[in-house]
Amino acid sequence: MRTGVWLVGARGSVATTSIVGALALRAGLTGPTGCVTELPGVNSPALPGFADLVFGGHDVAVTPIAKRAEALADAGVLPARLVAALPEELSAVERELRPAPTAGTQADRAAALVRDLTAFRQRHELARVVVVNVAATEPAPRPHPGHADADALRAALAGPDEVLPPSSLYAYAAVAADCPYVDFTPSTGLRLPALTALADRHGVPYAGHDGKTGETLLKSVLAPMFAMRHLTVRSWSGLNLLGGGDGATLADPDANAAKVRSKQRVLGETLGYLPQGDTRIGYVEELGDFKTAWDLITFAGFLGTGMRLEFTWHGCDSALAAPLVLDLARLTAAAHAAGRTGPLTDLAFFFKDPLGTATHSLADQWTRLCAFAGSLDAGDTDATRG
Amino acid sequence: MRTGVWLVGARGSVATTSIVGALALRAGLTGPTGCVTELPGVNSPALPGFADLVFGGHDVAVTPIAKRAEALADAGVLPARLVAALPEELSAVERELRPAPTAGTQADRAAALVRDLTAFRQRHELARVVVVNVAATEPAPRPHPGHADADALRAALAGPDEVLPPSSLYAYAAVAADCPYVDFTPSTGLRLPALTALADRHGVPYAGHDGKTGETLLKSVLAPMFAMRHLTVRSWSGLNLLGGGDGATLADPDANAAKVRSKQRVLGETLGYLPQGDTRIGYVEELGDFKTAWDLITFAGFLGTGMRLEFTWHGCDSALAAPLVLDLARLTAAAHAAGRTGPLTDLAFFFKDPLGTATHSLADQWTRLCAFAGSLDAGDTDATRG
Amino acid sequence: MRTGVWLVGARGSVATTSIVGALALRAGLTGPTGCVTELPGVNSPALPGFADLVFGGHDVAVTPIAKRAEALADAGVLPARLVAALPEELSAVERELRPAPTAGTQADRAAALVRDLTAFRQRHELARVVVVNVAATEPAPRPHPGHADADALRAALAGPDEVLPPSSLYAYAAVAADCPYVDFTPSTGLRLPALTALADRHGVPYAGHDGKTGETLLKSVLAPMFAMRHLTVRSWSGLNLLGGGDGATLADPDANAAKVRSKQRVLGETLGYLPQGDTRIGYVEELGDFKTAWDLITFAGFLGTGMRLEFTWHGCDSALAAPLVLDLARLTAAAHAAGRTGPLTDLAFFFKDPLGTATHSLADQWTRLCAFAGSLDAGDTDATRG
Amino acid sequence: MRTGVWLVGARGSVATTSIVGALALRAGLTGPTGCVTELPGVNSPALPGFADLVFGGHDVAVTPIAKRAEALADAGVLPARLVAALPEELSAVERELRPAPTAGTQADRAAALVRDLTAFRQRHELARVVVVNVAATEPAPRPHPGHADADALRAALAGPDEVLPPSSLYAYAAVAADCPYVDFTPSTGLRLPALTALADRHGVPYAGHDGKTGETLLKSVLAPMFAMRHLTVRSWSGLNLLGGGDGATLADPDANAAKVRSKQRVLGETLGYLPQGDTRIGYVEELGDFKTAWDLITFAGFLGTGMRLEFTWHGCDSALAAPLVLDLARLTAAAHAAGRTGPLTDLAFFFKDPLGTATHSLADQWTRLCAFAGSLDAGDTDATRG
Ligand SMILES: NC(=O)c1ccc[n+]([C@@H]2O[C@H](COP(=O)([O-])OP(=O)(O)OC[C@H]3O[C@@H](n4cnc5c(N)ncnc54)[C@H](O)[C@@H]3O)[C@@H](O)[C@H]2O)c1
Ligand SMILES: NC(=O)c1ccc[n+]([C@@H]2O[C@H](COP(=O)([O-])OP(=O)(O)OC[C@H]3O[C@@H](n4cnc5c(N)ncnc54)[C@H](O)[C@@H]3O)[C@@H](O)[C@H]2O)c1
Ligand SMILES: NC(=O)c1ccc[n+]([C@@H]2O[C@H](COP(=O)([O-])OP(=O)(O)OC[C@H]3O[C@@H](n4cnc5c(N)ncnc54)[C@H](O)[C@@H]3O)[C@@H](O)[C@H]2O)c1
Ligand SMILES: NC(=O)c1ccc[n+]([C@@H]2O[C@H](COP(=O)([O-])OP(=O)(O)OC[C@H]3O[C@@H](n4cnc5c(N)ncnc54)[C@H](O)[C@@H]3O)[C@@H](O)[C@H]2O)c1
Ligand code: NA
Ligand code: NA
Repeated sequence: MRTGVWLVGARGSVATTSIVGALALRAGLTGPTGCVTELPGVNSPALPGFADLVFGGHDVAVTPIAKRAEALADAGVLPARLVAALPEELSAVERELRPAPTAGTQADRAAALVRDLTAFRQRHELARVVVVNVAATEPAPRPHPGHADADALRAALAGPDEVLPPSSLYAYAAVAADCPYVDFTPSTGLRLPALTALADRHGVPYAGHDGKTGETLLKSVLAPMFAMRHLTVRSWSGLNLLGGGDGATLADPDANAAKVRSKQRVLGETLGYLPQGDTRIGYVEELGDFKTAWDLITFAGFLGTGMRLEFTWHGCDSALAAPLVLDLARLTAAAHAAGRTGPLTDLAFFFKDPLGTATHSLADQWTRLCAFAGSLDAGDTDATRG
Repeated sequence: MRTGVWLVGARGSVATTSIVGALALRAGLTGPTGCVTELPGVNSPALPGFADLVFGGHDVAVTPIAKRAEALADAGVLPARLVAALPEELSAVERELRPAPTAGTQADRAAALVRDLTAFRQRHELARVVVVNVAATEPAPRPHPGHADADALRAALAGPDEVLPPSSLYAYAAVAADCPYVDFTPSTGLRLPALTALADRHGVPYAGHDGKTGETLLKSVLAPMFAMRHLTVRSWSGLNLLGGGDGATLADPDANAAKVRSKQRVLGETLGYLPQGDTRIGYVEELGDFKTAWDLITFAGFLGTGMRLEFTWHGCDSALAAPLVLDLARLTAAAHAAGRTGPLTDLAFFFKDPLGTATHSLADQWTRLCAFAGSLDAGDTDATRG
Repeated sequence: MRTGVWLVGARGSVATTSIVGALALRAGLTGPTGCVTELPGVNSPALPGFADLVFGGHDVAVTPIAKRAEALADAGVLPARLVAALPEELSAVERELRPAPTAGTQADRAAALVRDLTAFRQRHELARVVVVNVAATEPAPRPHPGHADADALRAALAGPDEVLPPSSLYAYAAVAADCPYVDFTPSTGLRLPALTALADRHGVPYAGHDGKTGETLLKSVLAPMFAMRHLTVRSWSGLNLLGGGDGATLADPDANAAKVRSKQRVLGETLGYLPQGDTRIGYVEELGDFKTAWDLITFAGFLGTGMRLEFTWHGCDSALAAPLVLDLARLTAAAHAAGRTGPLTDLAFFFKDPLGTATHSLADQWTRLCAFAGSLDAGDTDATRG
Repeated sequence: MRTGVWLVGARGSVATTSIVGALALRAGLTGPTGCVTELPGVNSPALPGFADLVFGGHDVAVTPIAKRAEALADAGVLPARLVAALPEELSAVERELRPAPTAGTQADRAAALVRDLTAFRQRHELARVVVVNVAATEPAPRPHPGHADADALRAALAGPDEVLPPSSLYAYAAVAADCPYVDFTPSTGLRLPALTALADRHGVPYAGHDGKTGETLLKSVLAPMFAMRHLTVRSWSGLNLLGGGDGATLADPDANAAKVRSKQRVLGETLGYLPQGDTRIGYVEELGDFKTAWDLITFAGFLGTGMRLEFTWHGCDSALAAPLVLDLARLTAAAHAAGRTGPLTDLAFFFKDPLGTATHSLADQWTRLCAFAGSLDAGDTDATRG
């Protein structure tokens, strides 16, 4: 089952790490650490193998992917030996990358995106192409009547306005090309009534949003711990310091606000009340792709006694995100093959701000993920249907 | 259903906090923060209410419990206003405390313990008495043939030797008096073949061991997080600094070793391998009842990229432990009422080193606890049987 | 040498802690921990003793100081036993507190302030009155031509405008009443050309500004450490979480900006370059008077190897500030007695943003402080002059 | 002034980093970050330049130094590009390395060491050779009468016993060859009455001991901070986690004890009392040459209010130590050239456990270092004497 993985933001850190990693796994040069889909309970014959994945993508940047990979190796994100061992494989991917279309109306650009996706699928005889958005985080878009209704949207796109933010135009094109869509970022993407309606019409599944890789991952196990022990969280405050491309984008207060909001949601929903404090994001160029997050949690125990927990997370964001991108591509492809449509709420395990009313407890999300993965293997796939 | 709670080590910090807390709850002076049995999912009509609990206990120390409570208030463990509001209630408990018997053979002392338990049950017309060991941690005992066999044990106890460590003598007496038994400490307690056989013979349930209140609690959510994300934990090292009575005891290298061992078990069993590093315990008198634990976890992600998590836990051990003592007393009493016998492995949620082969993941332990609590309410209780 | 200490913001946390502490020291109920002027090298017969200090002050709030002291005791800032032991002494101070004048032009209000100061000095037959500003931090004032010139200022004050921010009006009145003036806050206070000219004309010494009690104190020893070791500080980022009255004020972005600026100055001036990163202040009501500051410092060593230092400071701001207020009152009084005038740049040890071009290295500031204190004892005092 | 630097333990991490760094500095491939002798105030024309340094040394290991350098580059201690750029320079150093003599009595071995040192000096026409001990830390030696007296020592060395620990035999040989000697380790080295007497007889200066690179460096600025602020340090506890060669050695409890003792000295001597708590060293292989040290300091302020400071130091030991080794070689060479003899107590800035009764405050040590460096430039050097 050859499966396309089309990355929006294909020259970024997360995308490049995902690609190098998948190529290295295929070549047997590394192991699947960090890949959830390789764990018993989630792994399943229904999932395409790493060797079945074919990569392509869009980006507004032009730096060759091999150069980006070298830069990531210099920054300690990737082992240099892997990049050195895969020159031809990286060139092959390079040939599948396309510039983001810029000419014409948004309708024209969407059509160009659809052509790129369709041509990719045909060129490589792919069973399907999963589109994954790993482009830079956008600010929240200006409201537009076309966001609410698929037909109004189509009409508006043909006009001169920038009706959709870029992430949503990619989502629109993905759906139009019958591709499942995953939003790994906090950007709008498919989250507009017009677009989810369109996705339903095209019968494609979609997942999102905002990959859960650091502080929120910890929150999704620590907040349930406090809840299960009936301890009252009085305040939860944090500072996320990060450099890298993503850090620079998030230094923009608008993008920052979107990210911070999705980070707090887990607390309110898990605890049933919102503790004092908030989470801040700070850009420190010198930290590069490594992020340092510090959180202070004050809580009350029996008879009101005050206590505190502090943690420092020092993680490489791209190395944490990349295997999840591969996991999501595999799971969403298998869901599509199994005929699933609409929001894949069972993939909440992977996201800061998951679709649907899913629980925010990582353990509960895990249980749902395992059940979901198991159900994909029930035989109702392309093969059996074909 | 009036229920006795007999605390071994009744004048210690944990016991005193448990008693003051239960009295304050009964008087409506405080809320049930930290009490797991008050959470939906665990709470059940099968559990005795706080107002149904009657306290008694043994201790080698003689400081009046009201004095101990005042000292804990000065140390910030308890609100002084609660101690001030409960003078008569504390006096009533004081009258139920008995010195640890010291005269005669171990058989003589066990008989004295049984008399104390039986008299307590009768004096207060209690449905049952749950014995909870919250005495100071002991060193591991010297092996003795009597540990393996109940009849050999009975014979040996009548002789001049100290066959059983104190915690096990209490467990022996509890069982002999048909009392359910909970071991909140890492001491030997009931964990000898001769004693578990005896418990089976008497048809009493038992639970243990070593209350999970700090670093291990965190391990039981963080280690599963690493496992679920397929991240490789390379090292996990920690330092626990604590003062207080328990700290002084643990400064004894033998007691320390027992505690450290139970702390590492969770890692090996959750991850499937043992990371480098270990956990140390240090006594720092000035820290009093507040413990500071620092842990450093180094882990590898995708492509081997190294990362780290560090946390500092600053908790009040007695305030964390006391509500769990009440929870365990309530749950074990209800289990006894429901006719349960043998090891209550479903109570693993509460323990560092739980009986049976229970999972060490807090979320899984929670699921089992909820199912257990739910099953107690099936009607097969004293009342229905009676 | 009876000396008046007139506190602007006399009912605040810092002021109340200073007063209770001085009264307790006088009564022999506590020791001088935290009082720099009690250390060998700084202590000197030229300084007024604690028993020589008489307290008064202005505030816009009306809560009785005894009530404020009780609240601080409840919050763990002060031992309750001290407050309980000093009811009459606190009443005596209460009688010396005056509301901040609100009627009339700023000239009228300044005259009222002068009357309060003069009456206090006469009523208690004080050798001098040191005015110390410990009122809530203000936003930066709007520029006004009167700020530049003493005569223009006098004229403008008689008009209807709010020419001076409150802190500067107090400074103006202090100088006009021939009182030495200490600014413990980051507010404008005496830092206007018109006011320093006036201070020179009246021959009074002054000191400031912004008491150095937490993160900046650490910076003043850590930054020199990096400099002395020729290590390159690449980034220094921090988050200060605080509740309490001061925290609420600083949540105001304008006041916050002033405070943050003074915090970064020490780095640039000590290192000779400004590392990346900045310091944030967050208000978390539940933290009360205890502040938690977290700092991350990344630095490069030999051959560019990257390293990091992280610290968490958990301090009680009022307990750190109060003894310094007493120190500053004593030292400034002695300086006045010794005939010193103008900016006391040798007191840089106490301040985040010290007057003059003083070094920011705590060790160098200490050396200057000791020399200064020593020089006060040269005999050229009131007594010898009188 | 060509100057020899003879490293005992020349194939270790510290030695290799020192050598690669000096070669890279000479080649203009890197800057002097971390080199204290390049700072204004310490730098002086009296110091030999980096280009004047010629390296040699002894080791019991045989791994080629270029291989060790590559391993350090892989571990992130050195930039790989530097090692790649210096193949010939490293070969040249390789030719100057000698195996530690193993045959014969200790007198025979000392004579062999002296021959190696003398031949090195002559072969390269060196003004002098500074011997620096950077070999693995030894356990404390067994006492021997020969330790107390130079003549008894000479007699004993000719016998069959291992009279001196290895570090002291190197020190003995250094002195016998008229070489200044620096002890960068906590081993015994020259610290025996017989050896210091011999050093005096030969008129050579010496310095030591135990390079100050991590936790103790921080203590030497933080402890004075608490002292200058009259804050009472109640407890100071720490855990040092380290891998690498040095970590493995220190896992040996005897070596560990020596290191821990020297680490606590600074506290007692700076504060005037010893706080509770101690410092532990733990070996965690996976941490490699990077050390993580965590310290918790609890302290009391005004009126006894309790507060705390916590820090985590994540440093690369070899990168911190290497520039200090170069600094010490340059300063000790210049001291020898200037005719200084005996203990160089003014170099306390560099050491955990400095010779003499020097202060442990880094700032005071810096003042002494600057004065010392300045005094070397007074003209009384080889050149002027020659
Ligand atoms: N790394 C993580 O842990 C993590 C976690 C959750 C979410 N994310 C999200 O993943 C995204 C990518 O992160 P990153 O670190 O790779 O960032 P990056 O800055 O390295 O890469 C973003 C890429 O997107 C490209 N891009 C920007 N606008 C585009 C457009 N309109 N069309 C096509 N390409 C465009 C950029 O040129 C760049 O190559 C971000 O939105 C981030 O918030 C990352
Ligand atoms: N507090 C926690 O978070 C926690 C968690 C897990 C386990 N525990 C365990 O709970 C126990 C109690 O802790 P604590 O902090 O209350 O200690 P503590 O020292 O304050 O109290 C122990 C009490 O046991 C009494 N005692 C000692 N030997 C006895 C004997 N032979 N018979 C009867 N009484 C005896 C002592 O006199 C004392 O009153 C310890 O074993 C501890 O390891 C505590
Ligand atoms: N605590 C520290 O460590 C520390 C360090 C440096 C500086 N400071 C500064 O000290 C000041 C006091 O801090 P705090 O914690 O006591 O704050 P606080 O809020 O407890 O007290 C401030 C007091 O000032 C009074 N006030 C406000 N405006 C006034 C006015 N116009 N005239 C007279 N009184 C007025 C308030 O009514 C209040 O009683 C703040 O400016 C703070 O920034 C404190
Ligand atoms: N790195 C630091 O920050 C630091 C700070 C202070 C002190 N030190 C001390 O510096 C020393 C070296 O540290 P390292 O990290 O380079 O250790 P390392 O283990 O990497 O190197 C030690 C070297 O000494 C050699 N050696 C052992 N015994 C010897 C002997 N008898 N004769 C000659 N060579 C011998 C070993 O073969 C090895 O090559 C240690 O004693 C350490 O305690 C290091
Ligand atoms: Na910390
Ligand atoms: Na930390």
